[in-house]
Amino acid sequence: MARIAVVAGDGIGPEVVAEARKVIDAVLPGVEATEYDLGAARYHRTGEVLPDSVLTELAGHDAILLGAVGDPTVPPGVLERGLLLKLRFSFDQYVNLRPSRLWPGVTSPLATVKPGEVDLVVVREGTEGLYAGAGGTLHRDTPAEVATEESLNTRHGVERVVRDAFARASRRERRKVTLVHKTNVLTHAGSLWARAFEAVAAEYPDVSTEYQHVDAAAMFLVTQPQRYDVVVTDNLFGDILTDIAAAVTGGIGLAASGSINPDGTYPSMFEPVHGSAPDIAGRGVADPVAAVLSAALLLDQLGHADAAARITAAVGAELAARTPGEAVRTAEVGDRIAAQVAA
Amino acid sequence: MARIAVVAGDGIGPEVVAEARKVIDAVLPGVEATEYDLGAARYHRTGEVLPDSVLTELAGHDAILLGAVGDPTVPPGVLERGLLLKLRFSFDQYVNLRPSRLWPGVTSPLATVKPGEVDLVVVREGTEGLYAGAGGTLHRDTPAEVATEESLNTRHGVERVVRDAFARASRRERRKVTLVHKTNVLTHAGSLWARAFEAVAAEYPDVSTEYQHVDAAAMFLVTQPQRYDVVVTDNLFGDILTDIAAAVTGGIGLAASGSINPDGTYPSMFEPVHGSAPDIAGRGVADPVAAVLSAALLLDQLGHADAAARITAAVGAELAARTPGEAVRTAEVGDRIAAQVAA
Ligand SMILES: CC(C)[C@H](C(=O)O)[C@@H](O)C(=O)O
Ligand SMILES: CC(C)[C@H](C(=O)O)[C@@H](O)C(=O)O
Repeated sequence: MARIAVVAGDGIGPEVVAEARKVIDAVLPGVEATEYDLGAARYHRTGEVLPDSVLTELAGHDAILLGAVGDPTVPPGVLERGLLLKLRFSFDQYVNLRPSRLWPGVTSPLATVKPGEVDLVVVREGTEGLYAGAGGTLHRDTPAEVATEESLNTRHGVERVVRDAFARASRRERRKVTLVHKTNVLTHAGSLWARAFEAVAAEYPDVSTEYQHVDAAAMFLVTQPQRYDVVVTDNLFGDILTDIAAAVTGGIGLAASGSINPDGTYPSMFEPVHGSAPDIAGRGVADPVAAVLSAALLLDQLGHADAAARITAAVGAELAARTPGEAVRTAEVGDRIAAQVAA
Repeated sequence: MARIAVVAGDGIGPEVVAEARKVIDAVLPGVEATEYDLGAARYHRTGEVLPDSVLTELAGHDAILLGAVGDPTVPPGVLERGLLLKLRFSFDQYVNLRPSRLWPGVTSPLATVKPGEVDLVVVREGTEGLYAGAGGTLHRDTPAEVATEESLNTRHGVERVVRDAFARASRRERRKVTLVHKTNVLTHAGSLWARAFEAVAAEYPDVSTEYQHVDAAAMFLVTQPQRYDVVVTDNLFGDILTDIAAAVTGGIGLAASGSINPDGTYPSMFEPVHGSAPDIAGRGVADPVAAVLSAALLLDQLGHADAAARITAAVGAELAARTPGEAVRTAEVGDRIAAQVAA
């Protein structure tokens, strides 16, 4: 049976993760979970973000379920670079998978988009680009200060994530992949992405392709999100586009994500797209759906496609039964979904 | 009287620019315009994008009015880097100004946003960041290929654009500036931006401030565009956010922009945010409103605030009189607005 590591984290993290675990236990009894105390609280208590010994222990698990880490009291970058990105990079989680679906029962902020019409997945590159941490500062705090950030893109890194996107598209109904970049300005990285995309596309004659500049894609996600099936893009563009995709499909409260190492060399990590939301933490009102859907992605990745599909269906039923504007009680949502998947 | 250079460009560029000039002539007779033939057509004919002699001639004008350049037959980057960005950088147009307003008569794709509620302006940095052209490729077309793009940010460049944003905000009703960056990942550039922002904010105690990560801002532009007044951000983030802002306020067909050198050392350049739209070129159906509003920004920059305000009011009347879904005839729109500003 699978052994997973659980990082509940800060703010609403522990609350939503508790429901995700409830649902996992209901759909697939016997998954072994070990809790790891990481995040803002530990950082404040011990000064540690991610000790090497913990990284090694995490590596021994089949997957990681993460709630949310972060708190306004921690300087920007400490937990992001030291924990989240450290895990994504150390565990070579090069596929950052972010599905967006407009579920029946959920209202889109877009006037003309109807439930069922949007069903896209962004395959965001997870280990390169501007997230590589290649940058520096000179003459800090003087008028001569200069700060740089470098986007690093390798053929190796780009091709493997593009291939993953095509493989996913070939298993979907519409079989379409949209490459998003900014080839007209970022000509070096853009050309590498475009050529890798073209090469992989040739291996998938049944998958149709298109290219869009990132600014155009950001616009079309608002005006015509229906047009997308699989979108593949770089780390930073993917960060931005997936928040737009989440916004038009009911908000980040519903958005799940997986940081996946498809090779299986390292554990993959699954987490809601939302943050720790300290403002509503501890009140039992956070929507656990994003965490529950992240658990479904986790089980799917571990080969339990059937259990994953049952969770997804139960979430669909949960959302369809909600009345717009209805307040949510975290534990009740988890109870209902757990009951449904156990049935 | 002002002397302007006109680059009508490709596709629908000449059509919409003709209407913008009609409106300028009506509101402020005597503006002297010289046409410059630049864009895809010239590139194909002569291989030239922007000869030095033309750059020098353009520099001698008070402002530049540009329609649109580009065509699918030109490789990505050639006209963007060689013409548009060349002008922005050569003429130190460090303020890329992009107002977004939801006009009465215009339908937003957002269900709950009403005309009059959105009135924001993005002050996008125009001469630094990932647009600097600092990047390279090694081992091209081999499995070892690596491509880089570098974001260059100077205290000088950041502070001046942030100062411009605060100056604009202090003249507006809500007096609020939102800094958008990604300080939690791009820690070097993010820190420089945040510190410059804080320093300038101290000079404007009447202006309120907030900070958002770019992914959150992209989301809030979709869910709550009303919350923004002035947004200041870097070159690439500004590119993406302004397309979202345009999308939620009726589309890039209405979005104007100015690439401004506030010091007046070089001419500023004004252009619609939309592209050359070769698919509808030559049919007289392109909406010239974005070009006309760009002309208003141009006149405002040249000190003709009154003429600019008259154009803006006439555009408001034109849009309010449209029925949703109504087809537009380019020349008729220009005629109506010209008649109104002349009256
Ligand atoms: C917290 C931050 C480092 C992270 C990112 O930028 O990837 C988050 O925005 C996300 O999308 O997972
Ligand atoms: C054409 C391109 C270089 C340009 C940009 O990225 O700045 C355009 O998208 C814009 O927004 O003006």
